[in-house]
Amino acid sequence: MDNAKLRAFTPLFYLVWSDDLLTQKEFTTLRDFITSQSWLSEKEQQFLLSKVDVSNPPSRENINNWKKELEEIVQVNPAINSIYDLVKVLSNNDANIDKLKPSFAKIENDLGFLGEEIISTFKSTTNTLTTKNTTHTNFDVSKLTGILDGKQAAIINKVKAVISKPEFAYQSETDNTAYRNKVYEWCKILAKENFGNKAYPSEYGGGDNMADYFAIMETLSYHDLSLVIKFGVQFGLWGMSVYSLGTAKHHKKYLKDIGTLTLPGCFAMTETHHGSNVKGLETTATYNHSNQTFTIQTPHKKAQKEYIGNAALHGQMATVFAKLIIDNHDYGVNAFIVPLRDTQGNTLTGITIGDCGPKMGLNGVDNGTISFNNVVIPKENMLDRFATVNKKGEFESPIPSDNRRFFTMLGTLVGGRIGIPRSALAAAKSGLTIAIKYGDQRRQFGPEGGSEVPILNYRIHQRRLLPHLAKTYAIHFGLQYLTSRFLSKTDEEIQEIEALAAGMKSYSTWSTRDILQECREACGGKGYLSENRIDALKNDTEVYTTFEGDNTVLMQLVAKNRLSEFRKSFGEMGSLGIINYVYQNAKTAVAEKNPIITRKTDENHLLDMEFHLQAFQYREKSILASAAKRIKKLIDSGLEPYDAFNVVQHHMIDVAQAYLERVTIEQFQIAIETIEDESVKAILSKLAQLYALSQIEKNKAWYLEEGYMESVKTKAIRKMVNQLCWDIRPNAIALVDAFAIPDSCLAAPIAFQ
Amino acid sequence: MDNAKLRAFTPLFYLVWSDDLLTQKEFTTLRDFITSQSWLSEKEQQFLLSKVDVSNPPSRENINNWKKELEEIVQVNPAINSIYDLVKVLSNNDANIDKLKPSFAKIENDLGFLGEEIISTFKSTTNTLTTKNTTHTNFDVSKLTGILDGKQAAIINKVKAVISKPEFAYQSETDNTAYRNKVYEWCKILAKENFGNKAYPSEYGGGDNMADYFAIMETLSYHDLSLVIKFGVQFGLWGMSVYSLGTAKHHKKYLKDIGTLTLPGCFAMTETHHGSNVKGLETTATYNHSNQTFTIQTPHKKAQKEYIGNAALHGQMATVFAKLIIDNHDYGVNAFIVPLRDTQGNTLTGITIGDCGPKMGLNGVDNGTISFNNVVIPKENMLDRFATVNKKGEFESPIPSDNRRFFTMLGTLVGGRIGIPRSALAAAKSGLTIAIKYGDQRRQFGPEGGSEVPILNYRIHQRRLLPHLAKTYAIHFGLQYLTSRFLSKTDEEIQEIEALAAGMKSYSTWSTRDILQECREACGGKGYLSENRIDALKNDTEVYTTFEGDNTVLMQLVAKNRLSEFRKSFGEMGSLGIINYVYQNAKTAVAEKNPIITRKTDENHLLDMEFHLQAFQYREKSILASAAKRIKKLIDSGLEPYDAFNVVQHHMIDVAQAYLERVTIEQFQIAIETIEDESVKAILSKLAQLYALSQIEKNKAWYLEEGYMESVKTKAIRKMVNQLCWDIRPNAIALVDAFAIPDSCLAAPIAFQ
Repeated sequence: MDNAKLRAFTPLFYLVWSDDLLTQKEFTTLRDFITSQSWLSEKEQQFLLSKVDVSNPPSRENINNWKKELEEIVQVNPAINSIYDLVKVLSNNDANIDKLKPSFAKIENDLGFLGEEIISTFKSTTNTLTTKNTTHTNFDVSKLTGILDGKQAAIINKVKAVISKPEFAYQSETDNTAYRNKVYEWCKILAKENFGNKAYPSEYGGGDNMADYFAIMETLSYHDLSLVIKFGVQFGLWGMSVYSLGTAKHHKKYLKDIGTLTLPGCFAMTETHHGSNVKGLETTATYNHSNQTFTIQTPHKKAQKEYIGNAALHGQMATVFAKLIIDNHDYGVNAFIVPLRDTQGNTLTGITIGDCGPKMGLNGVDNGTISFNNVVIPKENMLDRFATVNKKGEFESPIPSDNRRFFTMLGTLVGGRIGIPRSALAAAKSGLTIAIKYGDQRRQFGPEGGSEVPILNYRIHQRRLLPHLAKTYAIHFGLQYLTSRFLSKTDEEIQEIEALAAGMKSYSTWSTRDILQECREACGGKGYLSENRIDALKNDTEVYTTFEGDNTVLMQLVAKNRLSEFRKSFGEMGSLGIINYVYQNAKTAVAEKNPIITRKTDENHLLDMEFHLQAFQYREKSILASAAKRIKKLIDSGLEPYDAFNVVQHHMIDVAQAYLERVTIEQFQIAIETIEDESVKAILSKLAQLYALSQIEKNKAWYLEEGYMESVKTKAIRKMVNQLCWDIRPNAIALVDAFAIPDSCLAAPIAFQ
Repeated sequence: MDNAKLRAFTPLFYLVWSDDLLTQKEFTTLRDFITSQSWLSEKEQQFLLSKVDVSNPPSRENINNWKKELEEIVQVNPAINSIYDLVKVLSNNDANIDKLKPSFAKIENDLGFLGEEIISTFKSTTNTLTTKNTTHTNFDVSKLTGILDGKQAAIINKVKAVISKPEFAYQSETDNTAYRNKVYEWCKILAKENFGNKAYPSEYGGGDNMADYFAIMETLSYHDLSLVIKFGVQFGLWGMSVYSLGTAKHHKKYLKDIGTLTLPGCFAMTETHHGSNVKGLETTATYNHSNQTFTIQTPHKKAQKEYIGNAALHGQMATVFAKLIIDNHDYGVNAFIVPLRDTQGNTLTGITIGDCGPKMGLNGVDNGTISFNNVVIPKENMLDRFATVNKKGEFESPIPSDNRRFFTMLGTLVGGRIGIPRSALAAAKSGLTIAIKYGDQRRQFGPEGGSEVPILNYRIHQRRLLPHLAKTYAIHFGLQYLTSRFLSKTDEEIQEIEALAAGMKSYSTWSTRDILQECREACGGKGYLSENRIDALKNDTEVYTTFEGDNTVLMQLVAKNRLSEFRKSFGEMGSLGIINYVYQNAKTAVAEKNPIITRKTDENHLLDMEFHLQAFQYREKSILASAAKRIKKLIDSGLEPYDAFNVVQHHMIDVAQAYLERVTIEQFQIAIETIEDESVKAILSKLAQLYALSQIEKNKAWYLEEGYMESVKTKAIRKMVNQLCWDIRPNAIALVDAFAIPDSCLAAPIAFQ
């Protein structure tokens, strides 16, 4: 085509023939366009029409030549930005073409093109912003690790050294029995290192160090999670129940052997028919006056103990929760040590043990069922710290209320609700490390003419992973806070800390569930292969949201605790009292609620940590007050309280959630305050901002409903979340490196390419 | 205590001693309260104080007697509603007490109690609303099943009969090789039933019935999902690639044997380094002029074929996608039939097969890797419907553009994107059936004095499962629509239907992911045991969001298609054009956007299906327009289009999501319109309302941001979602029964208690 004005149509020819999205209809559109150009001669029109004749396509070479020609022109004319620009150059600025700018814009649209995008396919744009935003560390990774590990650094490093030894190589065993025995062997090694008895008193061989014990649980969680749970069942549930519910005679008799794993045991609370409603359990322990013994009995099949770790294979004894019966009178749930097997592993008379069989995960733990048929144990086997049967065969307890005594007993076992969320957090760290490292190396697609780009450079991939990374850091500091509150608790604080533990257990384990799900998908097909360990991480932690208290039930308890605290703080609970409270809260939030603030979108404000904390606090208080108000209203309208609490269950989850989010951001901010290293402080601040804003974004409907923010602000927050992800991305690798998870534990090939 | 005014304090004594939430501080509060009662003598005060002395607790009997006394009074005085009311009755209406109403209200609050709740613990409230809302079916279940199955009822019933036979009993095999072979045997049985070749032309032994083929895939998905995928690999991917990409000579030679499973084969597209960006794959097929053959070659380790089903054990041939090279010139990706093994199963020369090893799920499918080293195949093995090498050794194709040809080839394989979402939906139906049946039978907690209540009577449990049930019904009709569009497609519609299939594949598989996650948690510990099958359902479908196109990538494509359609429809794409469009959209929505509507909360309006559809349509159009505007703005500001599209990736997901949600509600509503049976129509309408409102609730932040709804309305919608869950709950069992999943397929013990 030496006729420049005909040549000008080349881009259109190329596009209709090469684009995979165009249909018959678009060919017609183009033909109509050509025939409407009255400045072309009929012959010229015929020529052009012949190029867009579906029954007579151009040759492959033809199309390639068009492309080459267009590329050459676009690459020397960087100002070309639309098909029209290109057409104009091709036509040598033909005067007729000059008038056709609107027509070309129209045809571009009629064909569904975005001009700039089309033009970019003729450019070689290897140096895009997307391409350039790659890994670049600008803080001291080891300093950050030091901050995360804190005072437990020594024990953490010791545990890492042990689990990195060759004998801890992962099992590729598909046979569950072999896997369970392997896990048991691993536990024995850990016992020899004095990890299991770390929290027990030194007089029984222990380390007197509960803080270290929690750090051990957490660090072990970088390794196989069946190991962690088996370890926790033996030394935590079994050992700590003897320690916390028993008295000196039990400690002396059992604790040392438990700590060395000479005496493997179980914690037998849950029954088939009673999990969450554990107060309703039905196993009985009947006192026999004649010989001062108890008879342990499973009254029916559904009252068997279920899901009991260490039961199916290894446990020799169990702490059994049963209703104490004396002279046909029920004295509520108490705990008893009941032998299950002899030291050779033979099941004892009256004991029937079943195997829970294959599970979704944690198949290295031998969960089983236990039934008791007329099993007689001596009186001293009652764990009698909170209740006993005296010499006269009468029930005695320093806590006269059965209800209160039962919850006091449960309260002593709250350590599990610290160990589990910390273990969950470690699993999330492993998953994020694998997924982020893979995202940094895996390349797909890219700009025209350039190489493929690391998938972590894509905004959607950043959105999938980096807010989760920020949340993981936030929860880390939240759990550190929970741990330290627990370790220094006074009697006055017990209820608050129990509620906080129940809540953080739920918050952390649900977070891990979501994170590992996202990690699986973010790693695509590779994430589905067991060798990359997201399989095990996800399936093993799946039940964390259920055991140690079902999350949904725990969240209701947390909310009830908050409501009770709320009532104590704000007196008269009529509607007036609540309105006063809401008014007070609104008044303290008056600065935030004025229209200048609700619409404020400048960067300084959006990144202001004080704004974040206030927003979280406001949400926490308002939701709590509105829940209280709603319950009151429902009951006033004649509903039974039981029904009223059912109506607001969904609202109660929000009450608990808002509380936990406030605690988490608060503790993250407080931790950052104390950091001296500026570069570490800077990157953690960015993570705290990302955590805060992505939570606000998640809850933005609520903020809008409340009038606390207007849409201009919530939209700005969405953009800022994107921006923070983009800004953090170069440090993403360093931020997962700071978790310092041993390579042998990570193990996933995709994390080491 | 015969002194009535002292006796009046009994409720407080009982409460402080029995409640597990009270602390030291509350004892102090109560002591202060007592000492401040100047109308009591000092002696009387001393007596009362002695009852709240922590160092001298009452006896257990004492507490029980208090409780008994209080119960007796409350049960004969139904008007008692607060501690004060109770105190008054106990004091025989003592005049002093009469004045103390505010003080008692205060102490109630200071102790953190809700009076009505406390009083209810003394009542026997067995007949609460919560207790009563149990299973009660009010529609004809079999009629609903008939509507779901539609014209495919006969084949669906036939498939169900086959998979219910004893030989289809689930494997409890943990050995993967045995499991894979079992799945292979099952496939052979299905082939004998002529299920596999159902869609092939009758001249090659097929059934000429694509609609039935999809129904078979879906129905098989009530059984083991490895079976479904193995079946789909053989008859769908392998067979349909030969059928769609090959010509008569290939059909004649292979199709019959493929359909009878005499010739097991693979579909070898994905490579280790190229999954989503499949255009970039690197395997080569080099034409040899000398003997008219192709040499298939894997150029490097990362270009091996990966995740290929049927490869590790059974496949004898494969459709291999490779770049065709003639005389050192690259003619783009084409497809070739390459033999892998002889009929004895021996791997052929030049072929190296690896095993993908254990996976998160689908372990009955033998996924493997394939590498080719100088594998020579005859020229006729090129699947040459869209391109061929002519006698002169030249490349020839009716589609001159490599790009367009490649996408045309892929387009013929779109059936997989219908089979997979339908399979996913079936898995969701299985999970919901198990979880809802369990929720109806499992009882925990209950009102004071009453029996435990089915957990499905709890609002939060309804919230977890019933919106998912509604969504599953909605997607059912959405996928029926997709299928019928696909089966009757014209050339003009191909792109739209491809985008719809890609989108519905993502929407359905993500939905299944979420549903099975919720089902697992809703079943607690039982949901974690493999015997209850949520394990397998969840882990097997986990990769559905990745294969047949990664959902996140597909959603970007769907959004791009929508944008392109948008441009075609609305001409001039400058900002002005978009503003005009938005204005038009707003104008059509003017009725909805007026303040009377944005605040409208009456039940008729909230349940109005027209309102629902309008809200979905408005969202779809507005998000699309704003995405277009944003991209334009970014590019105008100087961003490379590649970078601009990266910036809006997150927004693009919303574009696609809004489109798919609109299609789904629309099709659900249309389907309901045609139903004659009033009771079935009524329950499906409730589900459609629940689906619509729960989606609006999920997106309510957006509606608030847009001013399409005000907070009074979004709050009313939240309540209406709760109400609909409550209303649907009695029919929940019937609604899962209507899926008519064979008992032998469900298999979960918890679904049959």
